[in-house]
Amino acid sequence: MAQEIAQALAAIVGDKYVLTGADMAAYMNEPRDLWHGKAACVVRPGSAQEVAAVLGYADSHGLKVVPQGGNTGLVGGQITDGSGSQILLSLNRLDKIREIDPASNTMIVEAGVTLQKVQEAAESADRLFPLSLAAEGSCTIGGNLASNAGGTAVLAYGNARDLVTGLEVALADGKLLNNLSKLRKDNTGYDLKHIFMGSEGTLGVITAAVVKLYPRPRAVETALIGLESPEKCLELLMLAQAMGGPDLKTFEFMSRFGIEIVVKHTDGAREPLEAPHNWYVLLELASQSDAGLGDKMMALLEAAFEKEVIEDAVVAASLDQRKAFWTLRENLSEKQKHEGGSIKHDVCLPVAMVPAFLAEAGPIVEKTIPGARPVPFGHMGDGNVHYNVSQPVGADKAEYLARWEELNAAVHAVVTRMNGSISAEHGVGVLKRDLLPGVKDPVALEVMRRMKTALDPKGTLNPGKVL
Amino acid sequence: MAQEIAQALAAIVGDKYVLTGADMAAYMNEPRDLWHGKAACVVRPGSAQEVAAVLGYADSHGLKVVPQGGNTGLVGGQITDGSGSQILLSLNRLDKIREIDPASNTMIVEAGVTLQKVQEAAESADRLFPLSLAAEGSCTIGGNLASNAGGTAVLAYGNARDLVTGLEVALADGKLLNNLSKLRKDNTGYDLKHIFMGSEGTLGVITAAVVKLYPRPRAVETALIGLESPEKCLELLMLAQAMGGPDLKTFEFMSRFGIEIVVKHTDGAREPLEAPHNWYVLLELASQSDAGLGDKMMALLEAAFEKEVIEDAVVAASLDQRKAFWTLRENLSEKQKHEGGSIKHDVCLPVAMVPAFLAEAGPIVEKTIPGARPVPFGHMGDGNVHYNVSQPVGADKAEYLARWEELNAAVHAVVTRMNGSISAEHGVGVLKRDLLPGVKDPVALEVMRRMKTALDPKGTLNPGKVL
Repeated sequence: MAQEIAQALAAIVGDKYVLTGADMAAYMNEPRDLWHGKAACVVRPGSAQEVAAVLGYADSHGLKVVPQGGNTGLVGGQITDGSGSQILLSLNRLDKIREIDPASNTMIVEAGVTLQKVQEAAESADRLFPLSLAAEGSCTIGGNLASNAGGTAVLAYGNARDLVTGLEVALADGKLLNNLSKLRKDNTGYDLKHIFMGSEGTLGVITAAVVKLYPRPRAVETALIGLESPEKCLELLMLAQAMGGPDLKTFEFMSRFGIEIVVKHTDGAREPLEAPHNWYVLLELASQSDAGLGDKMMALLEAAFEKEVIEDAVVAASLDQRKAFWTLRENLSEKQKHEGGSIKHDVCLPVAMVPAFLAEAGPIVEKTIPGARPVPFGHMGDGNVHYNVSQPVGADKAEYLARWEELNAAVHAVVTRMNGSISAEHGVGVLKRDLLPGVKDPVALEVMRRMKTALDPKGTLNPGKVL
Repeated sequence: MAQEIAQALAAIVGDKYVLTGADMAAYMNEPRDLWHGKAACVVRPGSAQEVAAVLGYADSHGLKVVPQGGNTGLVGGQITDGSGSQILLSLNRLDKIREIDPASNTMIVEAGVTLQKVQEAAESADRLFPLSLAAEGSCTIGGNLASNAGGTAVLAYGNARDLVTGLEVALADGKLLNNLSKLRKDNTGYDLKHIFMGSEGTLGVITAAVVKLYPRPRAVETALIGLESPEKCLELLMLAQAMGGPDLKTFEFMSRFGIEIVVKHTDGAREPLEAPHNWYVLLELASQSDAGLGDKMMALLEAAFEKEVIEDAVVAASLDQRKAFWTLRENLSEKQKHEGGSIKHDVCLPVAMVPAFLAEAGPIVEKTIPGARPVPFGHMGDGNVHYNVSQPVGADKAEYLARWEELNAAVHAVVTRMNGSISAEHGVGVLKRDLLPGVKDPVALEVMRRMKTALDPKGTLNPGKVL
């Protein structure tokens, strides 16, 4: 059976682009080693038409297809199940940038282009493509859009879905939807692009996209700020929005324990401020010109001091210093490994509720697993908290990690009560699929199922993910 | 039959909120007098639950429902047909602002609140709700979202759909979808809000929305600029984006003939610049502080002069002068009436194609109706051209307007060839429904039909609109 499938797919994409046996290894495992797939074969189409033909074949033969981009997803959405009967559809040969149109501020990119290449192509046209996240060197734009990626630029530019004007999508039945619009406004019917973005390949397979380009900021001011409490962080955010408006590009926060971890486990890292503070904010303003931006940052910090919103602050005097500030924030998750196991939560709250969430979540963690050490950090400007929890000192790592779901349930209960989301930016995949019925409006789930039935009636696309 | 329906609906909403006979008049006609409806009755529910119950009744009795907000739509989407059997569902009693949350930068508004009231409520919390359009005094936020309204702030803030984090929607079968999320990031499943926005009430009836709030700009600089050609307008746009970044809030353009019409037919209006120019741009920069904004505008205009992009420019020295500039732009469509009949087009092009479109459309108009006088103007920053065409001097108005569809077809052919949209911001409704098959990808239309069937299988909602 598997051989028959491989042969049929080879007739579509060419022999050398159908992988079987040991050749499939790289596509069957993912970086965090949480999921391991089997598959009938891996198929690597070279064009959108070939992707559509692969889906058409699968759909008419009752086969199931799991699309995969850069294989960096954190919720298992891109991994086949253990049956060995599914087809792994890799988009990595769709790696062309079809067009750059600087005057329209658009670029047409194929699904398999890495995010970093998309960023670089924009830069080569003196434009910015703002989506930015840790995996950008290997994740692909198709995966970013299919999972509606977040990252550090959401505050100023929105989520991945907001950076798109059009899509090309292969549908379950083998048809190819041409929605590659470069238009900023188009009210000729329903918005089709938003259906597919964030659907994690369960409603269609994105083969190309028209992404929006933005003017490149010419100047940036970066401050690392010490504060007393999450409430003060929120006050600073409001002040920064009022005074900085769209110049405010970054508002990341982390707790004292997070800073301690990074400083302790990073060669050459040191305390960013003279004294320790309970909370830290990394704040950036950026603009089209140097003129006045430094003054704007100083005015903001002075106003914040005067109102006793902040305790201390330092503004980066060089690119190196800016990088050092960012290292504190970006290395946090990685350096946490030195402290043993970490149970993670990717939650979003209404921005105003972030302090209340932190106040309630801490005691609940302590009650559930005494001694466990929360390391909250993340994109406070979006209400997105990466609520990581390091194991108690001296605890057994495996035993601690075995309580992942239990701790998740306790923390998610707080999130849900505050009308938050238990998956802010990482998606649902397999990891959180079974949690949805507990947190979503039943009518919302019903509408989702109706969409799935409408667009993929046979359940060909990424079965067992999301729904 | 009509009486039976009225009685059943009165049992849901109360006697006094079901209108019949002459009481329905205001809901049966629309401002441009193009469509006239009949109806079994007008029903005015007082809550989202009552809206859902009305739909549930209609759906189970094979009745059809046409939702209506402020009744300002330009494509007939809000008007019942001539059968007298449809139910006109007015949302105008859902007029509460349920919550303002300045720290989260969100506001929960019911569908029937007028856009102006939404703007004012935001302002009362020292925030901006940026959606702005000519009908804002009477149009409602529900209608704005159902039709994905555009307006003058799209360049900086996006279309109506971009200003929303969550919706409450009554579905065809009488269920109420609670998607009133205040979250900036939520990847727990498909994005449901974008399905309903822009669907013109054919997939569900929006009863409330969570809208985004923004910092209020504190300073604005407004320039009225004379240019030689649309190509120069495009060059200026790119320069303004590069130098102004997100401070660029407005980039409206109009032709010389447009200025002549407004100046000629407006008491006290006068030429904005010393000499006449072929084209004019109204450009605004806005920022959170006065500091440096005037310099930024001057630097932009000087750079544009130096590169010979612009011919002349004047910066508003007072609020009165700013208002005078805006009057030139905003009165254009109204003052055009003095020049006889006007055949209108609401089209969108990839921004880079606007000059090519104008170059091709002019001769095609002249060939189709010799002597007809194009008055192109609109939101150039979005590629959105309101391509109005005044009748030839001395022509018969009725005879001219009888050729509306013929001229539309000729102009839309150019738009379609350039991958543009024949409805940028006004929607489809009845007016453009039959044009869609000629301009949309057949697969896109099929996906739209599948969604309609999935969410409204009996065709209860706004039949004959959009699809």
